[in-house]
Amino acid sequence: MGKKLVLAFSGGLDTSFCVKYLKEEKGFEVYTAIANTGGFSESELKSIEEKAYRLGAKEHITLDVTGEYYEKCIRYMVYGNILRNNTYPVSVSSERVFQAIATIDYAKKIGAGYIAHGSTGAGNDQVRFDLTFQVLAPEIEIVTPIRDLMLSRQEEIDFLKKHGVEEDYKKMEYSINQGIWGTSVGGKETLTSSQGLPNEAFPSQLEAEDEKTIELGFVKGELKTIDGKSFSNGPETIQALEKIASKYAIGRDIHVGDTIIGIKGRVGFEAAAPLLIIKAHHLLEKHTLTKWQAYWKEQLANWYGMFLHEAMYHEPVMRNVETFLEATQENVTGKVFLKLKPYHFELQGIESEHDLMNSGFGDYGETVKAWTPDDIKGFTKILGNPLKIYHSVNKKI
Amino acid sequence: MGKKLVLAFSGGLDTSFCVKYLKEEKGFEVYTAIANTGGFSESELKSIEEKAYRLGAKEHITLDVTGEYYEKCIRYMVYGNILRNNTYPVSVSSERVFQAIATIDYAKKIGAGYIAHGSTGAGNDQVRFDLTFQVLAPEIEIVTPIRDLMLSRQEEIDFLKKHGVEEDYKKMEYSINQGIWGTSVGGKETLTSSQGLPNEAFPSQLEAEDEKTIELGFVKGELKTIDGKSFSNGPETIQALEKIASKYAIGRDIHVGDTIIGIKGRVGFEAAAPLLIIKAHHLLEKHTLTKWQAYWKEQLANWYGMFLHEAMYHEPVMRNVETFLEATQENVTGKVFLKLKPYHFELQGIESEHDLMNSGFGDYGETVKAWTPDDIKGFTKILGNPLKIYHSVNKKI
Amino acid sequence: MGKKLVLAFSGGLDTSFCVKYLKEEKGFEVYTAIANTGGFSESELKSIEEKAYRLGAKEHITLDVTGEYYEKCIRYMVYGNILRNNTYPVSVSSERVFQAIATIDYAKKIGAGYIAHGSTGAGNDQVRFDLTFQVLAPEIEIVTPIRDLMLSRQEEIDFLKKHGVEEDYKKMEYSINQGIWGTSVGGKETLTSSQGLPNEAFPSQLEAEDEKTIELGFVKGELKTIDGKSFSNGPETIQALEKIASKYAIGRDIHVGDTIIGIKGRVGFEAAAPLLIIKAHHLLEKHTLTKWQAYWKEQLANWYGMFLHEAMYHEPVMRNVETFLEATQENVTGKVFLKLKPYHFELQGIESEHDLMNSGFGDYGETVKAWTPDDIKGFTKILGNPLKIYHSVNKKI
Amino acid sequence: MGKKLVLAFSGGLDTSFCVKYLKEEKGFEVYTAIANTGGFSESELKSIEEKAYRLGAKEHITLDVTGEYYEKCIRYMVYGNILRNNTYPVSVSSERVFQAIATIDYAKKIGAGYIAHGSTGAGNDQVRFDLTFQVLAPEIEIVTPIRDLMLSRQEEIDFLKKHGVEEDYKKMEYSINQGIWGTSVGGKETLTSSQGLPNEAFPSQLEAEDEKTIELGFVKGELKTIDGKSFSNGPETIQALEKIASKYAIGRDIHVGDTIIGIKGRVGFEAAAPLLIIKAHHLLEKHTLTKWQAYWKEQLANWYGMFLHEAMYHEPVMRNVETFLEATQENVTGKVFLKLKPYHFELQGIESEHDLMNSGFGDYGETVKAWTPDDIKGFTKILGNPLKIYHSVNKKI
Repeated sequence: MGKKLVLAFSGGLDTSFCVKYLKEEKGFEVYTAIANTGGFSESELKSIEEKAYRLGAKEHITLDVTGEYYEKCIRYMVYGNILRNNTYPVSVSSERVFQAIATIDYAKKIGAGYIAHGSTGAGNDQVRFDLTFQVLAPEIEIVTPIRDLMLSRQEEIDFLKKHGVEEDYKKMEYSINQGIWGTSVGGKETLTSSQGLPNEAFPSQLEAEDEKTIELGFVKGELKTIDGKSFSNGPETIQALEKIASKYAIGRDIHVGDTIIGIKGRVGFEAAAPLLIIKAHHLLEKHTLTKWQAYWKEQLANWYGMFLHEAMYHEPVMRNVETFLEATQENVTGKVFLKLKPYHFELQGIESEHDLMNSGFGDYGETVKAWTPDDIKGFTKILGNPLKIYHSVNKKI
Repeated sequence: MGKKLVLAFSGGLDTSFCVKYLKEEKGFEVYTAIANTGGFSESELKSIEEKAYRLGAKEHITLDVTGEYYEKCIRYMVYGNILRNNTYPVSVSSERVFQAIATIDYAKKIGAGYIAHGSTGAGNDQVRFDLTFQVLAPEIEIVTPIRDLMLSRQEEIDFLKKHGVEEDYKKMEYSINQGIWGTSVGGKETLTSSQGLPNEAFPSQLEAEDEKTIELGFVKGELKTIDGKSFSNGPETIQALEKIASKYAIGRDIHVGDTIIGIKGRVGFEAAAPLLIIKAHHLLEKHTLTKWQAYWKEQLANWYGMFLHEAMYHEPVMRNVETFLEATQENVTGKVFLKLKPYHFELQGIESEHDLMNSGFGDYGETVKAWTPDDIKGFTKILGNPLKIYHSVNKKI
Repeated sequence: MGKKLVLAFSGGLDTSFCVKYLKEEKGFEVYTAIANTGGFSESELKSIEEKAYRLGAKEHITLDVTGEYYEKCIRYMVYGNILRNNTYPVSVSSERVFQAIATIDYAKKIGAGYIAHGSTGAGNDQVRFDLTFQVLAPEIEIVTPIRDLMLSRQEEIDFLKKHGVEEDYKKMEYSINQGIWGTSVGGKETLTSSQGLPNEAFPSQLEAEDEKTIELGFVKGELKTIDGKSFSNGPETIQALEKIASKYAIGRDIHVGDTIIGIKGRVGFEAAAPLLIIKAHHLLEKHTLTKWQAYWKEQLANWYGMFLHEAMYHEPVMRNVETFLEATQENVTGKVFLKLKPYHFELQGIESEHDLMNSGFGDYGETVKAWTPDDIKGFTKILGNPLKIYHSVNKKI
Repeated sequence: MGKKLVLAFSGGLDTSFCVKYLKEEKGFEVYTAIANTGGFSESELKSIEEKAYRLGAKEHITLDVTGEYYEKCIRYMVYGNILRNNTYPVSVSSERVFQAIATIDYAKKIGAGYIAHGSTGAGNDQVRFDLTFQVLAPEIEIVTPIRDLMLSRQEEIDFLKKHGVEEDYKKMEYSINQGIWGTSVGGKETLTSSQGLPNEAFPSQLEAEDEKTIELGFVKGELKTIDGKSFSNGPETIQALEKIASKYAIGRDIHVGDTIIGIKGRVGFEAAAPLLIIKAHHLLEKHTLTKWQAYWKEQLANWYGMFLHEAMYHEPVMRNVETFLEATQENVTGKVFLKLKPYHFELQGIESEHDLMNSGFGDYGETVKAWTPDDIKGFTKILGNPLKIYHSVNKKI
């Protein structure tokens, strides 16, 4: 009997190589698993399954963790308005963690002694897989042929050919990683510091030339309706919005930031729905949260986004931050109005029972109801005390 | 001899009323002063001067503090990538403080016993004026007829008419406040929570329909060149960029946030050059600063922007933060490439000798040079220690 | 029928004056209320009640909010290890807020149109009372004779005498404010910056000369046992510990800090039990929380303590922070060993099932179990990447 | 010709073994270097030198970096009131970094191709040495026999004996690491979580039974005088204070915290002078800094202490933080009065021209000068606006 191994399988060249190599050269019984966090269609999953079996997988499984990924992660990223380095919705990074969790859980369930992933030794994903595997199942050994062998594409293709696999692993000009919370795009431009990505590098292309107004409805911080229409769950709502928004080719940018391993990285992405949701949610918060709620949310969410990006999802402070973020959403309920245009969008405004503006309490810049001029003078006088004391004490000497 | 009073004069209805009222009804000798922070043209200043004398000012002075405002404020806002509530470049708010400083300095210089401003009792500006005046000259009495009398526009016009002033104070549909670091726009829409501003509310209108690539050159965090061309000083560089960029009608948004007096406020703005400069500067920083420099800069700059907005410019921590921000800019030198389009723009990339990416040290996602797969495995193992310990300790009981 | 007014009554000279003055000179029907947060004994409360009626109170009530103060405030201060300016357990400041809440709730219950407190215009308490009253019952008018009249002690005593009140209001050398979470001590020394308080200024005097070891048992962050003995509730546990610890005259210091109104203040305090509890709790956390849990707890708790001190208890972010703090306490369960000595104490150590040290995982400084020397080398190599890149990039040019 | 290697030599068993082993078994030319940061006396240094030559060092050098350590590190730790985990003055941790810097600089100077240290694979020091070496001289190879061989004490002694070295390497009951900024103490108790260290474990023993008042004079945040007496430099001032204070056996505690490698560690320490200096300095700051200066200093200093402890001294943000900290010290000048007692001390008060208390501006809790009761009422009304709006908006629905 072979040694039982679970491989996180995506159907690409690297993990295809892994199936064959681990089975033929290393004598493993290879169980392939693909964890879908919402980025794959039925037909894609079907074709991946077929490929797995063709390559010699003992058993293949599709693990659907879309709901779990939404409940345990996307939700909090929205509450936190999380855009890493003010730009990137932590798309693929956060999905990877949930794929790792699903895969290691499956490995434990079937009693595998080994778990493998196909990441190289140069990026973030290897750390996300390794760390998650180690924390959740320290007893299972991690196997990483791609990282260890450092083969070229051609060497991998040759190896597969030698073992009778003649799949068409054509090198795409751009490496695309599609997920429900955004699609990453890498190419020759992102390897430089100076070049932007051409339009054609992005998976969605501009289809709409008009302006379109949409209304997003939030309940306690979660997107629940689009133009008044409800959906059966969070992922479906996101997908419906993506369908509308991607026609406008919005939500594109390039993320430049620090990788877990301490070097700078640069990657393009397209994330129409995530950008609309986060910006709309943030605007609603500006109306419904107090200044200091917004302040502390930003601190904690910024950290949350960083740790999520950096494979630290299982650090217990993350659970504490989630509790905080959820608590702040109590009144983040209302509608947000947006205008979609080719390549960009505008926030129009909001409507909410919890709106702290226009509360009939004292309208900004217009008339004064709840206080007198003398109240403001007193306020300013006292507010200035520390400054006045400081400047008077430190001027006189 | 009358009581000497300096009035911060803008030429609008409110401060025009003040000149007449303070002179005729209160018996002050009214010295009018306008502090230009870069928002006024020569001819506007000339016409304001003439109006002041027509209204009966004893003396009028134009205080040019554009250079000071740039050196002591704009520069730091760029270093800090300051966008209040992630949107607003703290345009008019920060200018007001420097206008207040110039005005009180002038009052001290001419030995005035009184200082007046024309702000109402509903907004932020009253606090900015009062606080700055009190800190810098606690001995000078503050006089605020507009806030105290709470007159309607018509009552002010009638008063002026009664005293022989027949200027044309027509109510504009939108109240516009133009400055070098942005122009604020208020109107009936900004008094609601739900409505955006129409295109025609903004002072600049779309004139260019093409795409235009520009290159911004920074030296130690300061914008120094546009497409390779130098300018004689900071304000001129900003104005040159504004001239190019405003044709594309970019840098518009609505700021929603907390006023100093604790209510929510909403104001539109247009700030093409500031947005381009800040976003370009931020991108250059992503390449030239380490993760933790960026992290702490963001913390301190966020606070700096808040305090600047909230009249706390003279809190001594602000000087400490400026020192910090300046220290971080040592290597923020290089070129940033942008693409201007109608209503929006794209960041293309950067070029810098201080670029921490592509340093030949270990390229992201490609080949591995400076470490081995085993180094990463060791790294991940140790990095995960706290998580592994936590989960092993707290699972077993 | 008179106008119904509730007075926060303490039995001291100021509030005694208020009863008489508000009744005789202002024609109010004065309902006196004392809110006990755990600082008063039965006999003190009885004597305060008698005094109230002697002074002419229409009705007097004792509001016992000790349990509420513990549940809604002390508990969180312990979770947060809150020592304002690293010293002061926010003793009297936090009690005042809960007294204000209880008093205004009572005023609403009996339908009073007015509420009064006896604070002067120089300290924090006036703001705590005013703000709490305004937030919870904006419709009830606040009356503050002591602040408004600015009378001297003698004038107050004379007024009372004139109205037939001959209580013995002797001026104590030290003004003492006793509460369950600490006792504040003000005197001529605390009005200077340079002088400490003499031993005799403190309410507790040294009675024990020995060393005493005690064991404090915490469950999810709350003190539950002393030397293994349980108590019926939180306040009783604190009081039992105070009885033991106050004999050692520990927990004394002088707090120097910023008042709500922007000036510096200085006040002595004695808080044996609070100091022991907080320091023991903090030590237990060092063993049971991860580094980043401790880090973020400190940030949020620091703010919580500041806002609690500064009358901002009703700012909604406080509820969010409480949620966070409570979430972090999940594993803060165990025993802490302390040694009490005259005037000071030592922390000995802890014992906990959740101890993250000595977990058999890799003992510090001794033997290495969970990793190899090569793992550490790899870790250090990768950890140093950003530093190595930065120094190599910025040296060569 | 042998391969040139510099060894960070302390004269203890581990580094003695290294000299012999690296020379005899590995064929290195061993240059021993001891970097003194102020913890060694002349005679200790002399005896270490003799031992080095006895063991076969090619050349031995004493690198005196006391002044550099003071200027580049201690000074900032005082500015920052740095006590890691609220307790530990980052004593030995920070010295190690400066020893590493001096040693690698020496290695570069003499053109060595190798550098060695004697740290084990279980603690922080290995990372401090490795990381500093790699950042400052990536071209020099690091050699770590103790970490790699994992020998027992006896094996090391046997090896030395075999090579004719018969030094008396007796195992002390407590491992003591003496430095100018504190002495660490490890022993069987610190390997547990529950036991304190006995008095005899500490190097200093109680010699004074009286109470002694001392006055510490600070100039811009630096300790300059003790009881009015000046010293020729910073390190001498610290040593003079240590001589006075160590007789009272103060400044002892146990630090529990996270090591760089992610496990919890526990170590005793004695640091009389550092504790007095930091606590005195902190008190002076409470009188001379504004609330927000104190707030931000604490944030940055907390991080600085963590990074210093964790080998990240060369992260560029550290230089930025130092700039900030220094800027805040402008007015931190004055005298602090302390009372030393057996095993503990008390802060009495301060005297400073920059004291923001008692500035004649409005004394806390006494009389009111700079504002009226109505000013406070106005202040409180406006201060409460956000709370009142929030509670009114969110109650009505």
